[in-house]
Amino acid sequence: MDIQIRSIVNSSIYLLCGLLMFAVSLNVVADADPLPSWNQGATRASIIEFVSAVTDKSKATYVPPAERIATFDNDGTLWSERPVYFQLLFAIDRVKALAPKHPEWKITQPFKAVLENDMDALADAGEEGLLKLVMATHAGNTTEEFARIVKDWLANARHPRFKRPYNELVFQPMLELLDYLRANGFKTFIVSGGGIEFMRPWVEQVYGIPPEQVIGSSIKTTFELREGKPVLVRLPEINFIDDKAGKPVGINQHIGRRPIAAFGNSDGDLQMLQWTAAGNGKRFMLLVHHTDEQREYAYDKDSHIGKLDKGLTEAATGNWTVVDMKKDWKVIYPFEIR
Amino acid sequence: MDIQIRSIVNSSIYLLCGLLMFAVSLNVVADADPLPSWNQGATRASIIEFVSAVTDKSKATYVPPAERIATFDNDGTLWSERPVYFQLLFAIDRVKALAPKHPEWKITQPFKAVLENDMDALADAGEEGLLKLVMATHAGNTTEEFARIVKDWLANARHPRFKRPYNELVFQPMLELLDYLRANGFKTFIVSGGGIEFMRPWVEQVYGIPPEQVIGSSIKTTFELREGKPVLVRLPEINFIDDKAGKPVGINQHIGRRPIAAFGNSDGDLQMLQWTAAGNGKRFMLLVHHTDEQREYAYDKDSHIGKLDKGLTEAATGNWTVVDMKKDWKVIYPFEIR
Repeated sequence: MDIQIRSIVNSSIYLLCGLLMFAVSLNVVADADPLPSWNQGATRASIIEFVSAVTDKSKATYVPPAERIATFDNDGTLWSERPVYFQLLFAIDRVKALAPKHPEWKITQPFKAVLENDMDALADAGEEGLLKLVMATHAGNTTEEFARIVKDWLANARHPRFKRPYNELVFQPMLELLDYLRANGFKTFIVSGGGIEFMRPWVEQVYGIPPEQVIGSSIKTTFELREGKPVLVRLPEINFIDDKAGKPVGINQHIGRRPIAAFGNSDGDLQMLQWTAAGNGKRFMLLVHHTDEQREYAYDKDSHIGKLDKGLTEAATGNWTVVDMKKDWKVIYPFEIR
Repeated sequence: MDIQIRSIVNSSIYLLCGLLMFAVSLNVVADADPLPSWNQGATRASIIEFVSAVTDKSKATYVPPAERIATFDNDGTLWSERPVYFQLLFAIDRVKALAPKHPEWKITQPFKAVLENDMDALADAGEEGLLKLVMATHAGNTTEEFARIVKDWLANARHPRFKRPYNELVFQPMLELLDYLRANGFKTFIVSGGGIEFMRPWVEQVYGIPPEQVIGSSIKTTFELREGKPVLVRLPEINFIDDKAGKPVGINQHIGRRPIAAFGNSDGDLQMLQWTAAGNGKRFMLLVHHTDEQREYAYDKDSHIGKLDKGLTEAATGNWTVVDMKKDWKVIYPFEIR
């Protein structure tokens, strides 16, 4: 075929396919409910109204795909965080696994408390104690070794109440929301107080969020040549705490654009939602309110974990969406409908 | 239409389109030269051979698109870096612009040297002096203000030799390479010793690399509410130096996967290329060797800026590709062919 003719034919085929696929996609959107686990009501409607506002080119609220950045907290927003943050349970299990190599832990806090299952003594150890736990269990290995340890733990550990692997305790309605946003051209990020390297080994498979779209707390690493082979070694030194006022800082550091939608569940997410709300144009801020003792947990302003107090106040004045888990969600976990 | 029938019709249309578009894409690849500014030869062939090896599903070297991560140094790899790093010229211009507000600079180094155009005295100020320059010119404003300052500077400043805006002094063959990789499913990242916030305002337009795929050196920022409006304020404190052994650290921190291809031009890129080379499967490492005094600059092991010494040695033993700018590139800058 002559090159020019071939080029015209190619262009025509592209155009034809574009039109056909556009028609098909209209059908698909009209057919399928993108949020089947969300009950009808104001919460669900606010999500759909927002997505429609920023994706409809005929509206003044339209946002180009490159700027459709959505950030999600993890603990309590995408998966459960009770009885305590799952990463703390990981650290506790690691202490027990490593204890034979550390006889001194039998008489040293907070390790003694962990080994004796003394949760009161562990609570007494406070933030400093937790930091010691994290450093003893998260550092000292290479990035590749640590990823393997996390994967092994997830494969074997079970949640005390639900008796399931922790990464099955993710919220089905939020999985649908992630898919729905991505289907509408959004780039979805995790912005969590949890460890960045604790999340990366599993979130791609579970949430469809690739490692390069995960922001979290971190310890420092250093580049070394070990027998000529380069490795990154994890050091017992805090690099960044991605919580509260750290979340907008982490977002700026990793993404370099302001999100147009942000999703959280606690006062640790407040500044991320404020930062998101303060941008120009249409914005969407959502808080998951844990109101379902039966199917999950119920807690807010009096909770040590996932405390939600100021967030509820700002949500009311700032017109943020608040999910009432009990009322808004048909199901909580994916295994309920499998 | 009955839903089931419609679904079958839709599937058939998708399948048909898929087949047609596959056929078309084969044609397009065969027709167009993806690297028109690269001369025929071993360098160009090595690029095409690598891309073919990782994108051909029938080969054992195939890599799924999600893992096709390519990292590019910026200074000297994607744009020129002579007579000195362009960001230093930016800092010098900023000192001059801010001088009326800082009368003390007339008698304080390294500012005095800058104001008197005394490059020897500036060189004498060493790294500590440069750090002072950076802190005085890059901190103290909000992230949004700083982005505006960078954009204004790029719009007005001109390169001393080429008399053009600095962001026109990017390498046309590298722009083609970025496009070629992305057309083959790669995600392209910048991993530069330069300032992350100095690059983000312009690299998307020039390189097609979005802000969330830019990794660089940074100063700390802090979240503040100013009259109720959240801002991120840039602090005169180093956060991260993304150079040498810092590059694999930055890559791990931001991307969380190891690149399969890495592109640099100096010993500051050595560890990034080593880290890339040490992964499993097919790998591609490339160094741009500045050999063209006539059209750009010629320098390597004896240069203070963009020193390339160990890199050339490792390239020879590790089978890395070395671009001989003079021999391999038909054109250097985009304006030569516009």
